[in-house]
Amino acid sequence: MKTYILPVLVGFGDCDPAGIVYYPNFFRWFDAATHAMFFAVGQSHDRAQREHGWIVWPLIDASASFRAPARSNETIEIHSTIEHWSAKTFRISHRAMRGDTLLVDGWEVRFIGEPHPDDPRRLRMVPIPDSVRQLFDEVDVAGPTPRDAPASESERSQRP
Amino acid sequence: MKTYILPVLVGFGDCDPAGIVYYPNFFRWFDAATHAMFFAVGQSHDRAQREHGWIVWPLIDASASFRAPARSNETIEIHSTIEHWSAKTFRISHRAMRGDTLLVDGWEVRFIGEPHPDDPRRLRMVPIPDSVRQLFDEVDVAGPTPRDAPASESERSQRP
Amino acid sequence: MKTYILPVLVGFGDCDPAGIVYYPNFFRWFDAATHAMFFAVGQSHDRAQREHGWIVWPLIDASASFRAPARSNETIEIHSTIEHWSAKTFRISHRAMRGDTLLVDGWEVRFIGEPHPDDPRRLRMVPIPDSVRQLFDEVDVAGPTPRDAPASESERSQRP
Amino acid sequence: MKTYILPVLVGFGDCDPAGIVYYPNFFRWFDAATHAMFFAVGQSHDRAQREHGWIVWPLIDASASFRAPARSNETIEIHSTIEHWSAKTFRISHRAMRGDTLLVDGWEVRFIGEPHPDDPRRLRMVPIPDSVRQLFDEVDVAGPTPRDAPASESERSQRP
Repeated sequence: MKTYILPVLVGFGDCDPAGIVYYPNFFRWFDAATHAMFFAVGQSHDRAQREHGWIVWPLIDASASFRAPARSNETIEIHSTIEHWSAKTFRISHRAMRGDTLLVDGWEVRFIGEPHPDDPRRLRMVPIPDSVRQLFDEVDVAGPTPRDAPASESERSQRP
Repeated sequence: MKTYILPVLVGFGDCDPAGIVYYPNFFRWFDAATHAMFFAVGQSHDRAQREHGWIVWPLIDASASFRAPARSNETIEIHSTIEHWSAKTFRISHRAMRGDTLLVDGWEVRFIGEPHPDDPRRLRMVPIPDSVRQLFDEVDVAGPTPRDAPASESERSQRP
Repeated sequence: MKTYILPVLVGFGDCDPAGIVYYPNFFRWFDAATHAMFFAVGQSHDRAQREHGWIVWPLIDASASFRAPARSNETIEIHSTIEHWSAKTFRISHRAMRGDTLLVDGWEVRFIGEPHPDDPRRLRMVPIPDSVRQLFDEVDVAGPTPRDAPASESERSQRP
Repeated sequence: MKTYILPVLVGFGDCDPAGIVYYPNFFRWFDAATHAMFFAVGQSHDRAQREHGWIVWPLIDASASFRAPARSNETIEIHSTIEHWSAKTFRISHRAMRGDTLLVDGWEVRFIGEPHPDDPRRLRMVPIPDSVRQLFDEVDVAGPTPRDAPASESERSQRP
């Protein structure tokens, strides 16, 4: 997978009294993009828990630079890529785009957790298995962006 | 317009520690559906303000019955219809569906406001113009639901 | 307990481009008030699960009438009371107040759930034990409202 | 002002299916802390707009490191300080604490905006006036933290 694209219809309620997106919502969409990207290759929180006893993708760091605002009724896209795999962490880049305009440039660092043997309420990091890494090598789910794809007028007006 | 359909991909962060959608999010999606439905026929908060000085669609009442839960990574749909126009209010029905299963059955009563002449921080109701009512008679934007519509593989993978 | 009072400082991000509280946030605060009210008498989601295998307080219905708006930096209060106990459900009234002004008048109907023996992903209602009902008879946690309570200057400055 | 402290009662709905705070909520609380801190020294979005035509405190960057999780019904505190004033930006440090435990360590960089003369939908940065900087030199609003302050049992159970 090169880049996963999550379309987002900006709602009136996603915006603040300045009329632009309330910034924590971008992190909400980054998180949603991470979960949707993994789900697209067959992984989910429930499945990882059930099959491996993993708590998947707790966050270590999140960061964003805000370059241009988004407003109600705009459809934007979150472009997400796994930029880097370390032994126990991985870094996902998220770029919020409106057409070709970069609105927000951010990233998250996450890991795979399991209950700590000394204290089940704490987590310890699991070395990232090759099988997880390979999910993103072998599958290409991104394809054309929604704005390149054929779509009826009615569909476009409704896209979330 | 018979029924406007807003697809919603349920995020991990839309769910609570019981693993199901945190209920206020359904009202968030109902509100988003109302705004998207009006936007589909050419109306928005900004435009109504600019052209008529209206504050559009403040809420009087909202209500919902919760019949079945939704979970992370499910795509659900909000089916919205204007059920009834009164002289100064209108009632929108919202049904959250997962396939043919009704999850949540709700409605909102809203009005068109303008600043009260005695106190600009209060609103008074504007009699609903025929032109607004007719927007929904004359236009049919709903079309096929996303699950009936032809979609490319890449598109489908992004609405998992 | 007669009435539980949850103070809420309305944030900039709780408001929408019309400059008033985005309505689903009132349901968020109603839910928070229900959980805080039960926590004040010693009950929580985790404890009910651990001690009884209960899923506590899934929602059946929620409703609200919006009478006056709230704005950023206002401190409002949610006044919550269990109005009625039925055999398997209970009804909580929530009133959002700014001083003596009623802003939103709402209620929730909830129950105590347990996994259905035929399908653990469904819930069935547990008859409400007297012990739960009595929690609210025997304990008075409401006490003075925050605005009557003595508070240091520094404390008050943090609830502007 | 050395440090502004905003107490936060973590709600059930602020947590995700892993049972811990959904991370974008920390940014929501950081933003709330910034607004509450300025409000405590007499500044708000509405007032800045009315008196100076300023759009106050748009965000340039936000970042956080997540060190320990928070859970439902815990009261945490956001400790916020303006760390650095530049000619046109300022940096606010936010530390989410549970007692003496640092949960999340973050910061925001913000500025004061005014409509750009060439395009009123864009903003340009206003050099930060001494009068704004001095608000934080001259006033000490933080005082003791809420957990040091005398409070009745009922009050503590209700603190948001």
